[in-house]
Amino acid sequence: MLPPSSERAALVRRRELLAHALGRTPALVASSRPRPRNYAADQFPFRAASHFLYLFGLAAQDGLGFYDGQSWTLYLPEPGADDALWDGAVPGFAEVAERTGCPVRSRAELPAALGSVQATRTVATLPTPDAETCQDVEALLGRPVRYGKLQAVDEPLADALVALRLRHDDAAVSQLRKAAEVTTPSHLAGMRATRPGVLEAVVRAAMEAEFVARDVRPAYQPIVTVHGEVLHNLKYHHELREGDLLLADVGGESPGGFACDVTRTWPVTGRFSTTQRELYEVVLSAQKASIAKVRPGTRYRDVHLAAHQEMARGLVALGILRGDVEELVADGLTALMFPHGIGHLLGLDVHDMEDLGDRAGYAPGRTRSKEFGHRYLRLDRDLEPGMAVTIEPGFYRVPAILGDARLTAKAGDRLNRAVLERYSDVRGIRIEDDVLVTAEGNEVLTAAIPKEAADVEAVMARR
Amino acid sequence: MLPPSSERAALVRRRELLAHALGRTPALVASSRPRPRNYAADQFPFRAASHFLYLFGLAAQDGLGFYDGQSWTLYLPEPGADDALWDGAVPGFAEVAERTGCPVRSRAELPAALGSVQATRTVATLPTPDAETCQDVEALLGRPVRYGKLQAVDEPLADALVALRLRHDDAAVSQLRKAAEVTTPSHLAGMRATRPGVLEAVVRAAMEAEFVARDVRPAYQPIVTVHGEVLHNLKYHHELREGDLLLADVGGESPGGFACDVTRTWPVTGRFSTTQRELYEVVLSAQKASIAKVRPGTRYRDVHLAAHQEMARGLVALGILRGDVEELVADGLTALMFPHGIGHLLGLDVHDMEDLGDRAGYAPGRTRSKEFGHRYLRLDRDLEPGMAVTIEPGFYRVPAILGDARLTAKAGDRLNRAVLERYSDVRGIRIEDDVLVTAEGNEVLTAAIPKEAADVEAVMARR
Repeated sequence: MLPPSSERAALVRRRELLAHALGRTPALVASSRPRPRNYAADQFPFRAASHFLYLFGLAAQDGLGFYDGQSWTLYLPEPGADDALWDGAVPGFAEVAERTGCPVRSRAELPAALGSVQATRTVATLPTPDAETCQDVEALLGRPVRYGKLQAVDEPLADALVALRLRHDDAAVSQLRKAAEVTTPSHLAGMRATRPGVLEAVVRAAMEAEFVARDVRPAYQPIVTVHGEVLHNLKYHHELREGDLLLADVGGESPGGFACDVTRTWPVTGRFSTTQRELYEVVLSAQKASIAKVRPGTRYRDVHLAAHQEMARGLVALGILRGDVEELVADGLTALMFPHGIGHLLGLDVHDMEDLGDRAGYAPGRTRSKEFGHRYLRLDRDLEPGMAVTIEPGFYRVPAILGDARLTAKAGDRLNRAVLERYSDVRGIRIEDDVLVTAEGNEVLTAAIPKEAADVEAVMARR
Repeated sequence: MLPPSSERAALVRRRELLAHALGRTPALVASSRPRPRNYAADQFPFRAASHFLYLFGLAAQDGLGFYDGQSWTLYLPEPGADDALWDGAVPGFAEVAERTGCPVRSRAELPAALGSVQATRTVATLPTPDAETCQDVEALLGRPVRYGKLQAVDEPLADALVALRLRHDDAAVSQLRKAAEVTTPSHLAGMRATRPGVLEAVVRAAMEAEFVARDVRPAYQPIVTVHGEVLHNLKYHHELREGDLLLADVGGESPGGFACDVTRTWPVTGRFSTTQRELYEVVLSAQKASIAKVRPGTRYRDVHLAAHQEMARGLVALGILRGDVEELVADGLTALMFPHGIGHLLGLDVHDMEDLGDRAGYAPGRTRSKEFGHRYLRLDRDLEPGMAVTIEPGFYRVPAILGDARLTAKAGDRLNRAVLERYSDVRGIRIEDDVLVTAEGNEVLTAAIPKEAADVEAVMARR
């Protein structure tokens, strides 16, 4: 529950920077509470709200950080009489204050503290993921706080947090590295657990067990599927068959709550078929071309387009597409087989700060494209050192897209369906890494997870 | 997502029985939606609300079942344009209607259907575990629906559902058996993964992996701890040491959402020490004495007291307690080391229908004891065939209890602390099974999971 002592200075600094940005505007940041599964006492594992974790590093239930326009105070519930019997000892206020570098008071004192500030100023806040905490904060502030709906008065707080969280400090980068570290054994275990005749669920179990055994959790619901063409496929009931590719989009969470987000695609038999290998190399080449573009000053949309261009080149070489590369991309032909964005921000959330809509992902003045294949791009900022992004191109044969006359109208004979049909043992391939923008260029945080076809096969040969 | 065809008749019958109980009173039963973890799109695995699952067997998000005073209709959201790309195909309304035996309409039609009924009657409903769905239902019905707060108008619906769900039909019993079936390999894997030097988390990982690999989920957050004296200990970071006992309270959920709830306690070395074995046998003997009392007509509080009596006998035999068994129980001496209830109802919730407070667990006219050791008893009904209950006595050395002068005041020299101190290698032991009340007596649904000390040691010897 407590942040390590080594993070104290970073936590203090984050709160100082936020206070500086807010000036005299007061702000309340809530941690949230566990989400009930069936009933109040049967809960999902507790995950504190990311903004709260960013400022306090503390997985405290029902905690609230309050900036009164001058300084921060952390308000925590006092343990109930029977809590120790059922839940064990919790750190005392003094210990929490020591680790977070922030004074701690009883939550019961918060209404009075809020009251004296609210007499003259409106307190900014941000909705938490759970509606119960939103209702609590509503009651405390006496105004609506609805998840997904930012009020005008809250926008300065949202903007200040985005400005801070966009560029990771050293403590955050260290957490991102830890998240990557626990994800490597998960993917290796997945490759080793793969064999014809078992369920997708068996591979998922092997991958998740590597997180659980290290006392950390997946950062998001794992995708482990032979139907990679369904982009967020959360079903695990198919039996693996020879000739299938298995797509695994699985990432761990660091102890402090930072996410890793990695996809690998490997053959069930342990050996790519010729057709699988050809398309795998196209996607891998597109991924490398994108990563090569990641450096300070590059507009992220150009990283996205670089993947499309490289993919167009590869698909032309295979004969699946024909024509001019730039025109194929501009006319949306690559989007027919690569319909999602090249990636997104990564941090305390796997889509970092997506709770604030496109406020984090899109620079002021930029908005999402309306075009198919580009409207799912979640990020379009100029890259800066300290940003972390995913790079995750994919190739998918999606019947609903390829059979949609409106979407394929522009393709004409530039899409060679007869050639595409030869690649029928590929339904979905995605290759995804986490990339930190550095002053010099970039660093791939997830480089230890094999992605060259030969390296994947070598891991699987040792099963 | 769909219930198996074999359950259709049971689902139809449940809705008919509920309709019969409700008469002309209309009712709305909502399924709930996934709970956000960090932000709207990063969600915990979806679990439909239990009352909805009971009536429709369907893990449908944002579905609502409506009884208009004459018949049931299921209202489901229509898939969005891009849903198939991201989430895959979902069953059509016709297929859902076929499997559930209930007509299905678009959710968009629900307000009109509600409106015509609400003109003359108030629609009963029940809060769902997620506040978001409660807010939806509030908006639909135009009155407050708050989780944990039953309105007077909703009580007939709650009572009718309690009356139905208390006694499991054949389809429910079949689901309880499936939940037990997936829990057996989990406990065996836990015993086999146990060894000195690994984290509790490693054992937890092995146990959960058995669920995940079978494409089912834990029914509740697993407890896997060397500190069993913290009753709901959800920490997994301790290293297992020789001489520790490991307590594992871990149960799986059937595909239809029914829970299993099992606790076993085993020695890290694979061999109980003499002191551990002596106390283990006391708890086991208390558990068997309790189970022997489970039959139609027995008051559950007497099952609870039978465990206390048998435990008093055992602790007197060891010299930890001295005095008359009945008096030791009456004066709360056994409660000092067995402070929780003997068990609870089991069904679609691991504490079945706990969302309705004590309405399910306590027969009309009965209320919870205020006494320490008995106020946590979650069930006090006369047992009937078809009820499923847990039987889970425990022995714990809890410093906060044994060091509390008020709690131990009555003990005097009847608690021999010097003898108790000899058992310092026991912090917590609990042995829990799931028991179905049958016409003839009972059936232990979880009998396949070893609990005799020799059987546990035999499993661990084969590690």
